[in-house]
Amino acid sequence: MTDHLTHSAFVSAVKFDDDGLVPAVAQSKETGEVLMLAWMTKATLEETLATGQVTYWSRSRRKVWRKGETSGNIQRVKHAYIDCDSDTILLQVEQVGGAACHEGYESCFFRKLDGGKDWKTVDERSYDPKAVYGGSK
Amino acid sequence: MTDHLTHSAFVSAVKFDDDGLVPAVAQSKETGEVLMLAWMTKATLEETLATGQVTYWSRSRRKVWRKGETSGNIQRVKHAYIDCDSDTILLQVEQVGGAACHEGYESCFFRKLDGGKDWKTVDERSYDPKAVYGGSK
Repeated sequence: MTDHLTHSAFVSAVKFDDDGLVPAVAQSKETGEVLMLAWMTKATLEETLATGQVTYWSRSRRKVWRKGETSGNIQRVKHAYIDCDSDTILLQVEQVGGAACHEGYESCFFRKLDGGKDWKTVDERSYDPKAVYGGSK
Repeated sequence: MTDHLTHSAFVSAVKFDDDGLVPAVAQSKETGEVLMLAWMTKATLEETLATGQVTYWSRSRRKVWRKGETSGNIQRVKHAYIDCDSDTILLQVEQVGGAACHEGYESCFFRKLDGGKDWKTVDERSYDPKAVYGGSK
């Protein structure tokens, strides 16, 4: 990941959807845990980048949502990325208070599919990994 | 993360948007890297869970997108999570070929905002962390 963008190039690159929103994924810089996905307008993205503190747009409340405003569990931006299609943002954050979720969990993704320790293996391989990667796989 | 769901409870819980889509974040099980965000219909979610191999819905091509169909860089599901609002899915995957992005990078988030090593610190704290967490923070 070596392509560095200036602030203005970053914001200009973002493709907002028909509602003027872009999804932003927040990941803990410290633990690597994916914390949440929420949405940003251009204004809340700019506020986030200017202040270094994450501000989303609440689609349900239809208002600016300064993460942690009520709980104190703010998110401080450490690194920001944009994806290849320019329609998703990834923020690596310091999650103050250790919990991003309003239900008290570190991550909003606290419900897990009970698929066993590892997933079932697909029956058909699209190719033989041994042929591609050698015997170690 | 202890709340385990059965397959049917998992799929039933998902709130698809007005276009019948849900965003799915793929994270490397091995490296923790956030690889990409793409979209799923109920049918492609069910196919993903049934086969253990990630299938998205391509919004641009308006068709089922079996990830890796062309490149061979398939994603094998290891764990699946749903968020507190039931409107985002997180998949921890084995990224075959080591690269999720069609541009050859491990992650689609290869463009980074040049914000320095760490972000600027916000000027105003919403509260005093020492008062909440004690002297260790």
